[in-house]
Amino acid sequence: MREDSHLQLFGLGEYSAAMCQLTGIALREATQALLDADLSLAEQVIAMDTQLDQMWSTGEQVAIGLLALQAPVARDLRIVISALRIVADLQRLGVLAIHIANVARRRHPAHAVPSDVRPFIERMSRIGVQLADEAEAVLRTDDLAAARRLPVDDDIMDDLQRDLYHHVLAPGWRHGVAAAVDIALLARFYERFADHAVSAAQQVVYLVTGETH
Amino acid sequence: MREDSHLQLFGLGEYSAAMCQLTGIALREATQALLDADLSLAEQVIAMDTQLDQMWSTGEQVAIGLLALQAPVARDLRIVISALRIVADLQRLGVLAIHIANVARRRHPAHAVPSDVRPFIERMSRIGVQLADEAEAVLRTDDLAAARRLPVDDDIMDDLQRDLYHHVLAPGWRHGVAAAVDIALLARFYERFADHAVSAAQQVVYLVTGETH
Repeated sequence: MREDSHLQLFGLGEYSAAMCQLTGIALREATQALLDADLSLAEQVIAMDTQLDQMWSTGEQVAIGLLALQAPVARDLRIVISALRIVADLQRLGVLAIHIANVARRRHPAHAVPSDVRPFIERMSRIGVQLADEAEAVLRTDDLAAARRLPVDDDIMDDLQRDLYHHVLAPGWRHGVAAAVDIALLARFYERFADHAVSAAQQVVYLVTGETH
Repeated sequence: MREDSHLQLFGLGEYSAAMCQLTGIALREATQALLDADLSLAEQVIAMDTQLDQMWSTGEQVAIGLLALQAPVARDLRIVISALRIVADLQRLGVLAIHIANVARRRHPAHAVPSDVRPFIERMSRIGVQLADEAEAVLRTDDLAAARRLPVDDDIMDDLQRDLYHHVLAPGWRHGVAAAVDIALLARFYERFADHAVSAAQQVVYLVTGETH
């Protein structure tokens, strides 16, 4: 491969790490907008849609351009394949953060999250942001050991989602059907966010070792 | 490219069409299991997991093998790129059908869907199965016009999902919180199914024209 293609390959990791960082910020701010019923912050997150779509699209174009012009093989090919999968995962991360911001906007000026549910949402958001941060580091450094540690964290999110459903479905629930539906969907968005963050980071396992799924 | 690679490229379309057909069957049967509270049918759908994962994995391996060994360009490269995206979409279609079957299993022997909600679910399932059928035809034939017609159908699913939320959140709702949460999640699964079916079919637009997103 030509020298400038190596630079582009190196750039793909940095690029996806930057995109991952942005999705972590989007999730943190979406959660803040949700918990504070902050309309203007919710709209800021929703407006990140264009930027995230553009980053996804650019990442794909660079990767496809490398395939078309450089015909990479072995590890270089895996870098490009994993970049295609990673930007697709990261685009979903962004969309899920925006879904959360949309719940905040739809319920404004009311709070979508009753006070007894706040600790669950805070915890899910903290884990989601942490997974995005960890995925970012993995994407930037191709750290195989760190990539392999991630799925354990995702299990915590599954457990939290189940605990939250139990809370909503318990006889003591007194916030009605609309709040229950909001919370169930929010829990799903956080869980999917965690899943895609782990999936993006796991691409590094494929990149380094060639092992799939 | 070598002659046998052309056969493999041709095979990718047929292969993804077959996988798409399987997801349509999975959705239809998951819905039937849901509406009839049929545990054994639900478990049959859930057991399709292994087969769908294997098809996804094989599709990816063939596509990556073509990239590594044949260094395809132009339309041949687009066939491979789109195959990678398509099998990822189809894998999600399968997972979503299985999520629906899981709701049926979790509620068994009770019915997860109250009788007044049945028409919504039947309609969403019909549209989902129809989209999977249309996507299958598009993948088999690379029919650009048919691929471009699909997003309109997806709008109908969005409208149905909204109508269903209104129904669940109306003052007349008398099935409690647990049923409301089930229905909200089910509606989301059907809507995501439609979205991924359309996305898979739209890859044919990229394949034929090179236009992205």
